[in-house]
Amino acid sequence: MSKGLTTRAEDYSRWYTDVIMAAQLADYSPVKGCMVIRPNGYALWEKMQAALDKMFKDTGHVNAYFPLFIPESFMKKEAEHVEGFAPECAVVTHGGGKKLEEPLFIRPTSETIIWSMYKKWIQSHRDLPILINQWANVVRWEMRTRLFLRTTEFLWQEGHTAHATAEEAEEETIKMMNVYAKFAQDFMAIPVIRGIKTEQEKFAGAVRTYCIEAMMQDKRALQAGTSHNLGQNFAKAFDVTFQDENGDLKLVYATSWGVSTRLIGAIIMTHSDDKGLVLPPKLAPVQVVIIPIWKGDDQKDAVLQKVEEMTIQWNGRFAFKVDDREGYRPGWKYNEWEQRGVPLRIEIGPKDVENNQVMMARRDNGEKTAVPMANLSMTVERTLETIQNDLFKKALAYRDENLIEIDSYDEFKEKINDPGGFFWAHWCGQNACEDRLQEETKATIRCIPIDDSKRVEEGTCMLCGEPSHERVIMAKAY
Amino acid sequence: MSKGLTTRAEDYSRWYTDVIMAAQLADYSPVKGCMVIRPNGYALWEKMQAALDKMFKDTGHVNAYFPLFIPESFMKKEAEHVEGFAPECAVVTHGGGKKLEEPLFIRPTSETIIWSMYKKWIQSHRDLPILINQWANVVRWEMRTRLFLRTTEFLWQEGHTAHATAEEAEEETIKMMNVYAKFAQDFMAIPVIRGIKTEQEKFAGAVRTYCIEAMMQDKRALQAGTSHNLGQNFAKAFDVTFQDENGDLKLVYATSWGVSTRLIGAIIMTHSDDKGLVLPPKLAPVQVVIIPIWKGDDQKDAVLQKVEEMTIQWNGRFAFKVDDREGYRPGWKYNEWEQRGVPLRIEIGPKDVENNQVMMARRDNGEKTAVPMANLSMTVERTLETIQNDLFKKALAYRDENLIEIDSYDEFKEKINDPGGFFWAHWCGQNACEDRLQEETKATIRCIPIDDSKRVEEGTCMLCGEPSHERVIMAKAY
Repeated sequence: MSKGLTTRAEDYSRWYTDVIMAAQLADYSPVKGCMVIRPNGYALWEKMQAALDKMFKDTGHVNAYFPLFIPESFMKKEAEHVEGFAPECAVVTHGGGKKLEEPLFIRPTSETIIWSMYKKWIQSHRDLPILINQWANVVRWEMRTRLFLRTTEFLWQEGHTAHATAEEAEEETIKMMNVYAKFAQDFMAIPVIRGIKTEQEKFAGAVRTYCIEAMMQDKRALQAGTSHNLGQNFAKAFDVTFQDENGDLKLVYATSWGVSTRLIGAIIMTHSDDKGLVLPPKLAPVQVVIIPIWKGDDQKDAVLQKVEEMTIQWNGRFAFKVDDREGYRPGWKYNEWEQRGVPLRIEIGPKDVENNQVMMARRDNGEKTAVPMANLSMTVERTLETIQNDLFKKALAYRDENLIEIDSYDEFKEKINDPGGFFWAHWCGQNACEDRLQEETKATIRCIPIDDSKRVEEGTCMLCGEPSHERVIMAKAY
Repeated sequence: MSKGLTTRAEDYSRWYTDVIMAAQLADYSPVKGCMVIRPNGYALWEKMQAALDKMFKDTGHVNAYFPLFIPESFMKKEAEHVEGFAPECAVVTHGGGKKLEEPLFIRPTSETIIWSMYKKWIQSHRDLPILINQWANVVRWEMRTRLFLRTTEFLWQEGHTAHATAEEAEEETIKMMNVYAKFAQDFMAIPVIRGIKTEQEKFAGAVRTYCIEAMMQDKRALQAGTSHNLGQNFAKAFDVTFQDENGDLKLVYATSWGVSTRLIGAIIMTHSDDKGLVLPPKLAPVQVVIIPIWKGDDQKDAVLQKVEEMTIQWNGRFAFKVDDREGYRPGWKYNEWEQRGVPLRIEIGPKDVENNQVMMARRDNGEKTAVPMANLSMTVERTLETIQNDLFKKALAYRDENLIEIDSYDEFKEKINDPGGFFWAHWCGQNACEDRLQEETKATIRCIPIDDSKRVEEGTCMLCGEPSHERVIMAKAY
């Protein structure tokens, strides 16, 4: 590669953009706030979609598609919802050359349009539950945008379920938070803290919002998925009732949950290094790149023939690519594939052919070893698994190192900027302290943990000194 | 089922809507012109997407994602393109609570936004070809809409490729028309005519448009896919040049091609009957439904246990569902699954268990036969294949019966309404005759065939009597 990337130490934010540009994951578009997801980035998204979609289907969900447009009047039916979302909507006022009678909002999320349909589809308890997911684009007008993390248009999935009882809805909400946590840990190799959002941070229109929070390498938090128990708020707004077994008319309970292309940002910022992108093997569109090395046609034929023999059984086992382009030096190729985050590189030259071996280089830790050609595919499979596990362990260790109990607000104000981290702190539960925290430190309460990072103990609010019964997680966030 | 569907003979158009509603493929939304694709319809679309996506990738294409919004100024850069599309665009004038400086069009198709990016990505012949596809929603303001066939918003894929030479672009254009034809025939079981659109019917901004045309059961044509050779029109509009091997600066050549959820309408109208939806097995989300029949708990246990044994090896071979719902009569279930188009039904009762057999009923022709339990999965697989082939043969026979040579305009004017069909007719090549045809008969020139339905022979234009060298296909169309 001709020019190096900005390093994390130099400028974390520029490093992030450099990694994306060098890996050709995305590009800025001429439309303000919108990005283009390039083929390398989209291939990653496709693998994420496939894994998530399978998990949704395995838990009984089906996909559907609802309109992009939401009539203004629908948005207004749920008071908190419109207050939360209307200010950031894009609005269509003209169509087919004419001014519209009623402006159409472009969906920032689809609760309202979907619940207007559920009203048509739900009459009896036999129609419940409805477990629908949608893969779609949504638009939220953003002033300050950042590739993948915050763009005016983004891709996501949004689940919208309808249930007969409050218990079922709560169970679904928690189930989907756990699906997200499992996906984050098993596929993205990102450890997450599961928790509940504060009243002020919850989804506009929800009774309760569950979330998963991940720590990036700059120790900021990234909200990596949310699952909302909507109670009967949308059923009330759209008058959606059902007849139960006894013939009584009851309001329906709702949940919604979503993750977006922002997760690509989380993967980049959790694993990548100063050389560029690092991808977890389970999500890497190319898992193994083979670089044949030769001088002259005789060597070339011998090496390429060996590569062919070697890989003949590989299709379907893992995704590999042979980079036999002419006119590029091996070192140049190594660099390019490193920037693109390919987990494993195999180098094979004439000497290797003679010795029945190859050189294998791991992207995550740079380890380079000679391995025998015999059983190579098994070695590759095992190494990919090891890389997947090692990435998770490394991220977990980093997260845990930077997850700190704190009791003094003065100390917090210092440490939140340097060294930064996730801070377990006592909070009284009042909005005033939460607001003050954000104003004075730009940190927020990320969640009240409900997993093994939960810390139930008596204490006093770090800000006001009033009693508190458990610690919350405070951090600066993306 | 309680109420029957409208029959095709009674009212073809109402029959079409009834089939969709009974199969729960889609529903009308409260947003004018937009539909909701319900889970049954979306599952079908997912199978179509998977098959098409594989064909695109097997021919070297990759997926990406470009913004929903197109600045007004971009639309105007290609004169024919803006003339063709601007009148049917939805326009965003406000975002984030403010009036926008420049209105944003919602993409009706993405040539302009994509070519503005290709300008950034293409410098050298080494950057070519670019073979990108996008799965996306698009919006075209429609006054008269119809589920799947014509809606304001629809889902589609759009391929956009960039090439160094005119020959390569033409080759790509034809290749993708052939991919569409293969998909139509092999998966949708729909025979199509491949051809070229007239100058007036071609895509706004194209040099030449190739298409595939299918005949519906009411003998109308449905354009089932188009592939455009865009020449250098968009490269000129967006100033996209590359340095060739000799260092000379040249304009890039382009193609674009697309199919949409309208194909679901084509499947419905090609195969379905008065009982409801008929799906080709290769695209049916549920290929086989098993209806266990019992009276009393003892029978129930015996039958369900047999079903379990029978299907234990079926996962991954075909998609099946066991309908063991209580409180519904078998006949009611048969009807429901028939309406949903499931290709094969297996009935199994206590007598069948005793005799080691099941009853198998084909959705396409109603044939019902007793088949032995031994090797049942192979029988099912073979029968699904047979159904797939029979559906195609039946559609082909119907199409060929109604593909008629005609020379007299008077005769044409009569026959186009009754019995209707596709008509091979001579046309002089002039716009005036094409316009007159449409005004007087509402039929259009569907295409100039380039497959074995091509008819090169000297003749005279059916409308004006001037010389013609080959026949074109005329029909009424959706």
